[in-house]
Amino acid sequence: MSAEAPAPAPVAELARLRASIDNIDAAIVYMLAERFKATKAVGELKAANAMPPADKSREAQQIERLRQLARAAELDPDFAEKFLNFIVTEVIRHHEKLQGRA
Amino acid sequence: MSAEAPAPAPVAELARLRASIDNIDAAIVYMLAERFKATKAVGELKAANAMPPADKSREAQQIERLRQLARAAELDPDFAEKFLNFIVTEVIRHHEKLQGRA
Repeated sequence: MSAEAPAPAPVAELARLRASIDNIDAAIVYMLAERFKATKAVGELKAANAMPPADKSREAQQIERLRQLARAAELDPDFAEKFLNFIVTEVIRHHEKLQGRA
Repeated sequence: MSAEAPAPAPVAELARLRASIDNIDAAIVYMLAERFKATKAVGELKAANAMPPADKSREAQQIERLRQLARAAELDPDFAEKFLNFIVTEVIRHHEKLQGRA
């Protein structure tokens, strides 16, 4: 594209970007659904075997790994860590519910 | 698998599930990185054209759409909405920073 090419109209460009965001969000929702299936299986396994719901050393490894992945993907590592904490909080809530009825 | 098949050893099964969770997390981190590229472009477009950072009607549409997708994916729709709010809060923080230097 030459430097003289006209910029796309802002409203059309906004619509194009939003369509991409919507596609990405759909992909993330399906990934999250799959992730919760896996953590539900972890929760059931832990409840059946009297394993503790939280595991601090596993969480520390996950945080370090996600921060490295975030750097590789040019995502803010602090945001990636906040994101993981947000998810893990929800997962532990589910596990504690499961342990309650184990 | 017959009902009599032995259950996998809990520690091995936990390791298997965690490997899947790690794969899914890597996919989500790369999706989030791509999403922030798109919202950064939206922020720059809005800043260059004096469009407001937040857009309540767009957000309402996104929430309704994500709740529907969550139901189709068997993910808790309330969690999907909390997730979107978490992301949008971060995006608006970025947009406001951009508007500040526009």
